[in-house]
Amino acid sequence: MKYMENNNTSHSKHPFIIGVTGGTASGKTTVCDEIMKRLENKRIAIICLDSFYRPLSKEDRETVASYNFDHPDAFDWSLVENALRDLKDGKDIEIPTYCFKSHSRLEETVGLGDVDVILFEGILSFYTQSLREQMDIKIFVDTDSDTRLSRRVMRDIAERGRSLEGVLYQYEKFVKPAFDDYILPTKKHADVIIPRGADNVVAIDLIVQHISSKLSEKESFRKSQGQLNVNGGSNTASSVNHA
Amino acid sequence: MKYMENNNTSHSKHPFIIGVTGGTASGKTTVCDEIMKRLENKRIAIICLDSFYRPLSKEDRETVASYNFDHPDAFDWSLVENALRDLKDGKDIEIPTYCFKSHSRLEETVGLGDVDVILFEGILSFYTQSLREQMDIKIFVDTDSDTRLSRRVMRDIAERGRSLEGVLYQYEKFVKPAFDDYILPTKKHADVIIPRGADNVVAIDLIVQHISSKLSEKESFRKSQGQLNVNGGSNTASSVNHA
Amino acid sequence: MKYMENNNTSHSKHPFIIGVTGGTASGKTTVCDEIMKRLENKRIAIICLDSFYRPLSKEDRETVASYNFDHPDAFDWSLVENALRDLKDGKDIEIPTYCFKSHSRLEETVGLGDVDVILFEGILSFYTQSLREQMDIKIFVDTDSDTRLSRRVMRDIAERGRSLEGVLYQYEKFVKPAFDDYILPTKKHADVIIPRGADNVVAIDLIVQHISSKLSEKESFRKSQGQLNVNGGSNTASSVNHA
Amino acid sequence: MKYMENNNTSHSKHPFIIGVTGGTASGKTTVCDEIMKRLENKRIAIICLDSFYRPLSKEDRETVASYNFDHPDAFDWSLVENALRDLKDGKDIEIPTYCFKSHSRLEETVGLGDVDVILFEGILSFYTQSLREQMDIKIFVDTDSDTRLSRRVMRDIAERGRSLEGVLYQYEKFVKPAFDDYILPTKKHADVIIPRGADNVVAIDLIVQHISSKLSEKESFRKSQGQLNVNGGSNTASSVNHA
Repeated sequence: MKYMENNNTSHSKHPFIIGVTGGTASGKTTVCDEIMKRLENKRIAIICLDSFYRPLSKEDRETVASYNFDHPDAFDWSLVENALRDLKDGKDIEIPTYCFKSHSRLEETVGLGDVDVILFEGILSFYTQSLREQMDIKIFVDTDSDTRLSRRVMRDIAERGRSLEGVLYQYEKFVKPAFDDYILPTKKHADVIIPRGADNVVAIDLIVQHISSKLSEKESFRKSQGQLNVNGGSNTASSVNHA
Repeated sequence: MKYMENNNTSHSKHPFIIGVTGGTASGKTTVCDEIMKRLENKRIAIICLDSFYRPLSKEDRETVASYNFDHPDAFDWSLVENALRDLKDGKDIEIPTYCFKSHSRLEETVGLGDVDVILFEGILSFYTQSLREQMDIKIFVDTDSDTRLSRRVMRDIAERGRSLEGVLYQYEKFVKPAFDDYILPTKKHADVIIPRGADNVVAIDLIVQHISSKLSEKESFRKSQGQLNVNGGSNTASSVNHA
Repeated sequence: MKYMENNNTSHSKHPFIIGVTGGTASGKTTVCDEIMKRLENKRIAIICLDSFYRPLSKEDRETVASYNFDHPDAFDWSLVENALRDLKDGKDIEIPTYCFKSHSRLEETVGLGDVDVILFEGILSFYTQSLREQMDIKIFVDTDSDTRLSRRVMRDIAERGRSLEGVLYQYEKFVKPAFDDYILPTKKHADVIIPRGADNVVAIDLIVQHISSKLSEKESFRKSQGQLNVNGGSNTASSVNHA
Repeated sequence: MKYMENNNTSHSKHPFIIGVTGGTASGKTTVCDEIMKRLENKRIAIICLDSFYRPLSKEDRETVASYNFDHPDAFDWSLVENALRDLKDGKDIEIPTYCFKSHSRLEETVGLGDVDVILFEGILSFYTQSLREQMDIKIFVDTDSDTRLSRRVMRDIAERGRSLEGVLYQYEKFVKPAFDDYILPTKKHADVIIPRGADNVVAIDLIVQHISSKLSEKESFRKSQGQLNVNGGSNTASSVNHA
């Protein structure tokens, strides 16, 4: 683990950052949710790359069906890079709230700071070097493309009221090319590859235990500094999920 | 299955055999159909491995939903191996007719003999060494697994009146494991790999031209022997397809 | 193989078993060695599948150059399966000592028992279901085949005095086909995939920490039972490695 | 086949262009050589992408060991794009002669024009869209990376007097990353994939026959125009090979 000099007055505000990526419906979100569930009341938070979608212009909104939400250009990279860097430096940040109905950024933001562990999750969370450099561990959730399509079809029809044709069209036109061209090439940066995603209890266990150790270290450190974590954890998830 | 009238007596009866394989919905059948269409009236026939499914026992028929039609055990290997060997040796053969409703072999068979070129097509057409040894060229139609699933979903719902859940369940339970365990490992025997399947006009062109050359050679040979192919061929389709 | 003095009597004798596999020169051994080094004095042992090579018959020894040490048939599966099952059941075992010069089993064996964690490592350590069932976590060390060949060439020439031609010949004739046919298909059983092998410090860290947690749990259990691990462990290496 | 309006006075100067690519030592050159050998005296020529290497600057020559000949930046794309476009348009071209000793372009060039079929071969021959658009058929020679490394090691030591360490170092530092980042992603443009490269007699046969057909068509066309190909073909290969 790379770590930072503890040059803050308050406390060990240099969170351990875990990057999680993988294709659509690979199980990254479920892996993260499972981890969060088992570490409830701990000082851990999820950040979703989806929160950093660029607001669509008026023109883009009018032709939203042909807007490519899977392409790197859809994300506000400097905003997310600054956010992660600030967190790592021990600063509090404000996470934007993206509205998937209006495709705009809402006025409200979600404040985040002073956590021990951060899960940073998204289809392109390894995309830029600046992001990768903030991560202490990089996890690629690797699920076969046909299994991912199968899951996505079921999910988009059940949860988003989409038609089968619509889902398959979007997958072939946007999702698959973006995976091949932009997501898969980031796999080479992974420290650990988790096959099968959410079903993989053993791997989730491994990650949970790893995080627990990090949390204990941080807690010991705080105690040794005579400080107290009064409120327990705050799971500040900005977890509206899109891709 | 498409075949030709047997209107010659005995000569040059050693057909050029082209094996075509690939996963479900890879486009193998479309590739073969396209080839047949462009070589109409030629002495060419398709044999589908599906014709050689084993008839189901009474017990298997009662639990047909859990019968694995994608597993090698579902095929009558000695029957198909003998058929291909006989054809290559210049003998006429009888191809069984498999009924996908009753899951039994019908009494009628389809006679086949005296053709110049045979397309032998199926998910496991490279499965046994005996089959591979009869083939003059082995073609693997290679289409990404998500694209194949997408095509299969659309096809099974549209043509076979299946439910989405049913198609996805069968795919995950039978089709995908069989591909990984039995079909993909036969790819190493391929002489030529055709990516993208049916859309790949250039590759189909290449194969058609290759076959045309073989057919011309055979024709020249017959002419040189003072023989005449009076009627040309008639490609009678009876292509019930299952896998 | 590295093992531990058996200086305890009977308690908590159900070790946590970690299976580690991967192709030749993938870095599995280095990953294991690194783990052992960082957990010195702990109750942990390595078992190498290589210890369970079958002794060669007189005929095989005479034509040893054409003997396939990469094929599953080269291993004594029932012996290794029994060993791992006994260990998991809390029994002491005797591990055979294979001599890579005489290609026979030496008379001496190495006793092993009463450890908390076992690393079971080898090219085919996931090969049988019985073995996989004993494992608490299954790790596949995934390194590109060209990188593995490059490492193997350097290693075999430097450490085993082999010629370049000899190494490449053996690789093409035995090592590569066995990887494709027997090792790679076991990847689907992996819980965690570690890319790049020995260079991957972050992943090794993750595993070490996981093992440390398991060791702490076991220790706590023993303490709660009023027992004492007086001497700590001693990891005695006898790691003749072949594949 | 896409074709061009025949708007030349002289003759059918719109060659059929076959692009051939694949990783280092995949067998592309051997495939091309085999094709040329079997079509001797035909109006066919090979163009190697290597002829279009940029001349090295003085600074680059001084540090040539660290110059990346596998990166796209090493090639003069506009020069090769113009050359192929001119050929397709029926114009004669001059192919530069690259000297692999001095890493400069020699003064002499090789004239090429009036051929019926062109093989355009190189590690990055599918790299730009402009090049791909000139090709009537695109062939990817697909050989496993370990097999390619093995061949390259033997070749570079035997033919180029290199040391094993040197070859492996260069492979890991330049050749492999360039393959992963630039060559492999062009595979998706292939019409036909030829596995195993030079050993694959059946596939080479298929290509040779395809070319023969194209040559016959062209010849028939010329005859029908009352023209005569007096001299037979000229195999203008600029076949110094580097990568």
